[in-house]
Amino acid sequence: MSLSNWGRWGADDQLGALNFINPEKIIQASRMINKGKVYSLAMPIHTHKTPYDKALRVAPFHVLTRDGGDYAAGAKRVGDVQFADGYVFLNTHGSTHMDALSHVWYDDQIYNGFSDNSIKSKGAKYCGIEKVKGIVTRAVLLDIPLFKGVEYLEAGEVITPEDLDQCAASQGVTINSGDMLFIRTGWLKMLEENSEKFEKYEPGIGEACIKWIAEKEIIGIAADNLAVEVKPEEREGAVIPVHMKALRDLGVYFMELFNFEELAKDKVYECMFVAAPLAITGAVGSPINPLAII
Amino acid sequence: MSLSNWGRWGADDQLGALNFINPEKIIQASRMINKGKVYSLAMPIHTHKTPYDKALRVAPFHVLTRDGGDYAAGAKRVGDVQFADGYVFLNTHGSTHMDALSHVWYDDQIYNGFSDNSIKSKGAKYCGIEKVKGIVTRAVLLDIPLFKGVEYLEAGEVITPEDLDQCAASQGVTINSGDMLFIRTGWLKMLEENSEKFEKYEPGIGEACIKWIAEKEIIGIAADNLAVEVKPEEREGAVIPVHMKALRDLGVYFMELFNFEELAKDKVYECMFVAAPLAITGAVGSPINPLAII
Amino acid sequence: MSLSNWGRWGADDQLGALNFINPEKIIQASRMINKGKVYSLAMPIHTHKTPYDKALRVAPFHVLTRDGGDYAAGAKRVGDVQFADGYVFLNTHGSTHMDALSHVWYDDQIYNGFSDNSIKSKGAKYCGIEKVKGIVTRAVLLDIPLFKGVEYLEAGEVITPEDLDQCAASQGVTINSGDMLFIRTGWLKMLEENSEKFEKYEPGIGEACIKWIAEKEIIGIAADNLAVEVKPEEREGAVIPVHMKALRDLGVYFMELFNFEELAKDKVYECMFVAAPLAITGAVGSPINPLAII
Amino acid sequence: MSLSNWGRWGADDQLGALNFINPEKIIQASRMINKGKVYSLAMPIHTHKTPYDKALRVAPFHVLTRDGGDYAAGAKRVGDVQFADGYVFLNTHGSTHMDALSHVWYDDQIYNGFSDNSIKSKGAKYCGIEKVKGIVTRAVLLDIPLFKGVEYLEAGEVITPEDLDQCAASQGVTINSGDMLFIRTGWLKMLEENSEKFEKYEPGIGEACIKWIAEKEIIGIAADNLAVEVKPEEREGAVIPVHMKALRDLGVYFMELFNFEELAKDKVYECMFVAAPLAITGAVGSPINPLAII
Repeated sequence: MSLSNWGRWGADDQLGALNFINPEKIIQASRMINKGKVYSLAMPIHTHKTPYDKALRVAPFHVLTRDGGDYAAGAKRVGDVQFADGYVFLNTHGSTHMDALSHVWYDDQIYNGFSDNSIKSKGAKYCGIEKVKGIVTRAVLLDIPLFKGVEYLEAGEVITPEDLDQCAASQGVTINSGDMLFIRTGWLKMLEENSEKFEKYEPGIGEACIKWIAEKEIIGIAADNLAVEVKPEEREGAVIPVHMKALRDLGVYFMELFNFEELAKDKVYECMFVAAPLAITGAVGSPINPLAII
Repeated sequence: MSLSNWGRWGADDQLGALNFINPEKIIQASRMINKGKVYSLAMPIHTHKTPYDKALRVAPFHVLTRDGGDYAAGAKRVGDVQFADGYVFLNTHGSTHMDALSHVWYDDQIYNGFSDNSIKSKGAKYCGIEKVKGIVTRAVLLDIPLFKGVEYLEAGEVITPEDLDQCAASQGVTINSGDMLFIRTGWLKMLEENSEKFEKYEPGIGEACIKWIAEKEIIGIAADNLAVEVKPEEREGAVIPVHMKALRDLGVYFMELFNFEELAKDKVYECMFVAAPLAITGAVGSPINPLAII
Repeated sequence: MSLSNWGRWGADDQLGALNFINPEKIIQASRMINKGKVYSLAMPIHTHKTPYDKALRVAPFHVLTRDGGDYAAGAKRVGDVQFADGYVFLNTHGSTHMDALSHVWYDDQIYNGFSDNSIKSKGAKYCGIEKVKGIVTRAVLLDIPLFKGVEYLEAGEVITPEDLDQCAASQGVTINSGDMLFIRTGWLKMLEENSEKFEKYEPGIGEACIKWIAEKEIIGIAADNLAVEVKPEEREGAVIPVHMKALRDLGVYFMELFNFEELAKDKVYECMFVAAPLAITGAVGSPINPLAII
Repeated sequence: MSLSNWGRWGADDQLGALNFINPEKIIQASRMINKGKVYSLAMPIHTHKTPYDKALRVAPFHVLTRDGGDYAAGAKRVGDVQFADGYVFLNTHGSTHMDALSHVWYDDQIYNGFSDNSIKSKGAKYCGIEKVKGIVTRAVLLDIPLFKGVEYLEAGEVITPEDLDQCAASQGVTINSGDMLFIRTGWLKMLEENSEKFEKYEPGIGEACIKWIAEKEIIGIAADNLAVEVKPEEREGAVIPVHMKALRDLGVYFMELFNFEELAKDKVYECMFVAAPLAITGAVGSPINPLAII
């Protein structure tokens, strides 16, 4: 099989694997909802707590420009009104987030062959995050450490296609076309123990999973770490190869820094998944608060 | 009936009217999904296009810190990898957004009686937006200009409880406990015609709707304008009185700058509503990309 | 004479006309100080007051992340210590500022022939503002409206070399090699009257001044408007031609949004000038607080 | 003698020790200029290089919103014009900077008895940095490690009044009323060796220097570290006591993260000092590019 989806949905396509979601899939996803429970998979956005790639980025920043303290100090009211107001300064990949298809590429072309010249300082003309109006589909959680009988996978530990298949089988779930895949590695544990290690290394999927991803026709992969894929990489010189092939060639969405702890505790292995990236014109990713609904 | 929900769900409650949503409500909402179609109700986040209260706030700002242009100009790659990365600087109320229950108040107390001293420069201790893990419920759209036979309501035009009831009846929908209410005023049209007028004045609900809101037990109200409620206000000296009573006393969520044009065109009057605010610790609101799913 | 200084100070030069300042010039400038008085020529940096090019940029933003209000609301102290802390978000050209020689160019080459490929998202490799360690020289103020007998020049009014020469003569000052030139147009008056007009149009120097600038060997020009040069431009299709030629070809520094009102009132026509741009690596300009000392 | 300057220059005074600078002092300072050489004492403002208190603040951030890369990727020009433009996001104390007199205090009152209720989210009403129009005075550099015969002082090493006096004597300089004091500790060396240690601990002046500062009538103190004063502090529970007394009680200006290496190498022990904080309305400090001129 081809490991590229370029042209599969037309020369103009900017959605990639999201094309696997059709109306029936959305209806099917909605039928995952039988308990009426909503899980937020987001990690807190907090200057001094949110992990991020410190070599590349700066921390999220939040501040109030008007607050209760101002009134305590005598700030005037307009009529009876008191209010608080604030701002956030966020890297679009610096907390729980999803990548746009314009986030990573090679050979000067992004997904579906668009020239990377279309990505300038103000944003991406093609495959910007605003093209993703909102994702609603079924998601499957694979709890790899539970399957392997460990608390968490180790730094650099590679998750293979066999791991994914056998874990799914052990959980009694199947992965279908159009599904979102949640991969729990347990690595969040390392955030408390050693945040520097959490950010620098991680267990994750390896290159062998690229073909598996293509075959399963999943629309995206989220993990409880910074990059979904294993760090350090398996081969010398192969830098984030799963992103390179799965995001850029297949149009599959990568989402990072998800918190699956509650889902795992409740043994929720399938759910309706909703992700609604901010409609930032031309952004190459977006912070999100992903929801799992059952 | 009391026009306050303080204490109704306990002295510690920080969720307010979201308590009207129970598991059955979420399951019922999911059954709105029969066509498998997702509508994004967000307006674009764009420095020079997003409307906002210019006297109070600054425009949203987005920039890439690495882009295709950098590679065109010779930027080095790590291995084969090329990537784009960026940041947003956003007022938490400056584009399509939802207010937290800590956003507005009077008499030094926010919803449920928490002292406004709990809201300091770094954020709100109580009723911050992170307390809202994610909203999933049924929403009803009332298309007021369609009901009134106009293209859009006028600046300062008051929407009354009778308007809401009769519009709902004309559309054949009922509003139930736990529902989200979408009010279309058509005012977005003014954004193209006169953005300054759009930002300064607006049609919206009047004070008489406060009792109606309490009786209907709705969890929130969104509108296609900057403040949901009418501007200028009906009474001299009564500044945003509907926010004051409905948000602060009743714990009802206000959401602004929604785009209902597609829903209205498709005559979608009920749907599953999903809003997932960013998990910003202590923020008094959040930009959102609200979804309507049918 | 050549209207280019490329190569004049070596192929590697990144300082441009600042090379006209030698140690003797600095000593001479210091002898302007005989009264012991310091004038700040900066306009306030304030979100809602600072003028800027609204089509291109966003307003300066300042906020405290810790303040007296927080303590009034009960914030804890560490020992006895109370403190305030804050942040600014600034366009490097959005308040009183100086341009780096990497700010504007044509034909893909900046001052001295450096390729504009050297200016990427993170900053300029050549001619970034950090190359200007600090400017100390003599400055001459030309008060053009006083010379012309008007309160202020009109929008689009062109200042000619003859105006400059005759104004200098009428004030009894000469302009020497290595001097900084202050041009007062009176246009700040328009900021109070009509800020939109202030930002869109302005009186300023015309293209004929380029040769004059080259001959005088001045190091830079500051004005009390947004662009130093006249807007709209004199010729159709010639966009900011004085910047194009004087900054890019001659290496002359442009500084904008200066406030000369106090200097003019005190009839201070020569002074020691000190400008110390922030040492932002690779920035193409910097906010400054320019000082005139007599 | 009193260790307070409150009321010394009037109940309304917001300038503090800057009142020691009179016109004669400025003229005298200008006569320090005899070589025509300018030293910048600023450290680079750079996201990944500038040291800052990481527990309290976020890194400086700089980005271009238009650059040469955009043109390389095909960005359109207006006429012939190409340009670069950018933004900085800066803590007002996060790189080379000066504190305003509203930066630190105790007992709810800042310098000269103003209530700290005057410092709200948008800025300080009294003693904001914009009150300091620009500092021009004589500065004296004391090279303490040279005097002590070491490369640099150790973490926690206290500088005493005797050290200051003897160092000045050994250098043959006197410290006069209205002078600025530069204290070189050599601690910048630690920034290369161990940036975490650089930020957490430092050599600096101890509490005994407070009286010395008052007697000398200096206007401010700058050092090549993060806090001027010694860390950890000499007494348990006494948190930044020199700031508390000298800044708040005496109105003396503290400036941090200065680079004196060139001055020290050239054995420049007195100079004209110019510091021009950005005119940010109500800011409690400002990044600066301090100049030493001889």
